[in-house]
Amino acid sequence: MNTLNMMRELSIATPSKIVMLVIDGLGGLPDPRTGRTELETARIPNLDALARKGICGLADPVGPGITPGSGPGHLALFGYDPVECNIGRGVLEAVGIDVELGPGDVAARGNFCTVDENGISTDRRAGRISTEKCAELCKILDGMTIDHIQIKVYPVREHRFVVVFRGGGLVPDVTESDPSRTGVTSLDIKLLRPEAVKMADVANHFILQSKNLLAKHRPANMVLLRGFSRKPRFPTMPEIYKLDPLAIAVYPMYRGLARLVGMKVAITGTTLADEFATLKQSYQDNDFFFLHVKWTDTAGEDGDFARKVRVLEEIDAALPALTALGPDALVVAGDHSTPAVLKGHSWHPVPVLLCSEYCRPDAVTAFSEPAFLAGGLGRISSTQIMSLAMANALKLTKFGA
Amino acid sequence: MNTLNMMRELSIATPSKIVMLVIDGLGGLPDPRTGRTELETARIPNLDALARKGICGLADPVGPGITPGSGPGHLALFGYDPVECNIGRGVLEAVGIDVELGPGDVAARGNFCTVDENGISTDRRAGRISTEKCAELCKILDGMTIDHIQIKVYPVREHRFVVVFRGGGLVPDVTESDPSRTGVTSLDIKLLRPEAVKMADVANHFILQSKNLLAKHRPANMVLLRGFSRKPRFPTMPEIYKLDPLAIAVYPMYRGLARLVGMKVAITGTTLADEFATLKQSYQDNDFFFLHVKWTDTAGEDGDFARKVRVLEEIDAALPALTALGPDALVVAGDHSTPAVLKGHSWHPVPVLLCSEYCRPDAVTAFSEPAFLAGGLGRISSTQIMSLAMANALKLTKFGA
Repeated sequence: MNTLNMMRELSIATPSKIVMLVIDGLGGLPDPRTGRTELETARIPNLDALARKGICGLADPVGPGITPGSGPGHLALFGYDPVECNIGRGVLEAVGIDVELGPGDVAARGNFCTVDENGISTDRRAGRISTEKCAELCKILDGMTIDHIQIKVYPVREHRFVVVFRGGGLVPDVTESDPSRTGVTSLDIKLLRPEAVKMADVANHFILQSKNLLAKHRPANMVLLRGFSRKPRFPTMPEIYKLDPLAIAVYPMYRGLARLVGMKVAITGTTLADEFATLKQSYQDNDFFFLHVKWTDTAGEDGDFARKVRVLEEIDAALPALTALGPDALVVAGDHSTPAVLKGHSWHPVPVLLCSEYCRPDAVTAFSEPAFLAGGLGRISSTQIMSLAMANALKLTKFGA
Repeated sequence: MNTLNMMRELSIATPSKIVMLVIDGLGGLPDPRTGRTELETARIPNLDALARKGICGLADPVGPGITPGSGPGHLALFGYDPVECNIGRGVLEAVGIDVELGPGDVAARGNFCTVDENGISTDRRAGRISTEKCAELCKILDGMTIDHIQIKVYPVREHRFVVVFRGGGLVPDVTESDPSRTGVTSLDIKLLRPEAVKMADVANHFILQSKNLLAKHRPANMVLLRGFSRKPRFPTMPEIYKLDPLAIAVYPMYRGLARLVGMKVAITGTTLADEFATLKQSYQDNDFFFLHVKWTDTAGEDGDFARKVRVLEEIDAALPALTALGPDALVVAGDHSTPAVLKGHSWHPVPVLLCSEYCRPDAVTAFSEPAFLAGGLGRISSTQIMSLAMANALKLTKFGA
């Protein structure tokens, strides 16, 4: 079954409302000292109450054993096949700093790096220069025009930046200049398809000019480019689901991902309370809400088990403000697991909960990985969560007579 | 998701080690007198301890209801789609007796059979002649050259043999001569594609000559051929997984299967103790070990419930020698179920256990089919076991940014 085509065929616009609360990096692993995961350790009475009321399960964003990045993890939650609908690295970085890409633009991810007098790379990250320094250097490189292509350079963080190539006839199928190791020169950008000849030429010229402009800026005296890509053209959520979806997210990458699938993006603050307040304010104006909470993932990435527990407890404390709105279908899910003991994203399936008047509850009484093993949703693909949410909000008609 | 492509993209070589212990025909069915399966009957404290420590589940080698042969069962465990990556019968038989096949060779499985004076088949197995007799008759047929094609004939067991056709221009797409019943004459080999005309001609000539040479050897006075096939070209495990895999198996078919996917094959003895000793000796030199134990399957095929229980207990007793090596990821699985009450392979899902530092344990406390129903792996496809093992040994990078 092609789920998106099925949704496009069966979905109808109704006044009912769906809230999808995405707790980034939600799933975890046991602390070896206690044998309990972050969710099992946290005091989360409101999430536990939802688990009692709703139907629970574990979801694989991509597949068993596969650790997803943020892009694939979120696309799966929105119902898109994350392998088919891949987003290039350059585009994801651009989207992550709120850079708007036109349909013909090509974006690439850049690193400032250090090379010696023979052009041999000695540090692929230029000693992780400050974000401030990065912004300064980007100004130097920004604004070139090569062969009628305008080139914009945007700082990201530390040594990272984004280059956007704008103009006619650019095809992003080229290799990267980053050799992925030191002790060698950077690579020439080569074409992977004949149509990409202009892209390769412009990129190689840009790198050469950048080298000249940066000559006196050691350690950041060279650039490495990779992930040349164009904004993908996905069918949008309004087209597929007949929804009017709103994204509420503090971090730009998640707003960017939401825009790629056709969501509107709310203006919100920088805290969990801000996000929940924005949800309440906009609740009458939309029928689907993607509410993204980042800090569980950040704590997991930092290997800070206790902080991840604390963030979970904060989310739990804020939850009544959400449930008080009475969404017709409420999804609590994660884009991937980020166990503190692994200090990074992982392949472990992610807890998912669905709550509605019609969700056929199971016997689960706690919001945790082990408890959800026995949940009524079983083990599903994350791409199936949207169709379940749509069904529970009575937004899908019957298939076949 | 095409799992092999995904693995090829994400896998990295690391020093971590994976051991895959394949207990042939592992799954069973309850003895009607006790209501307990072979695994539930056996005293297997070490396997039970692994079940407590690791994550458990049930795996389908091909699909629900499908009884796999040894080829598909093993290919699935190695991560290959067993339907897509089919191995012809002739090749499997050749590989099963350590016959090396060249890329252009065509192998066919042969039976000696009995025909009457009118060529009507009266016994498709020639009264199951002895393996000794079979070897004698194979010598008579071995060594023909027909139309520049050299023909080698190798005895297998009882009435079974393998024919290898070697020379230019052979295409294996031909029908079989075995009518699969008695009371009729054997069939002419026909081509399924125009390019196979030479193969069909040579095979029909070989059958005619064999009939003449065997005329005085009743009951084995004719041959039946089927399963014409060429050695498949699978991507190898070193290519896909960046592993340096070693196979430890007493029986040649399993060594042959391992070679088809690019494993090295260890020299080992004929007992379980020999196999475990070989594992220990080679442990420093490889990073993936396929250790195959045959005797559970043999006991199951013989319908000998008690013997299957005994073999399970022997494996359990030997297990500490394996766990003492401290593999980063340990898989205990089977290629299919062989319930003693069915006296043969079956379609039942096979217990699978995965143990690593990062495997998110479940509540399972016993190594058995009913206990594994509640396992954290849930019900998976056997083809997913390799990606889970790779992830748990931290040999996979993130998918997407």
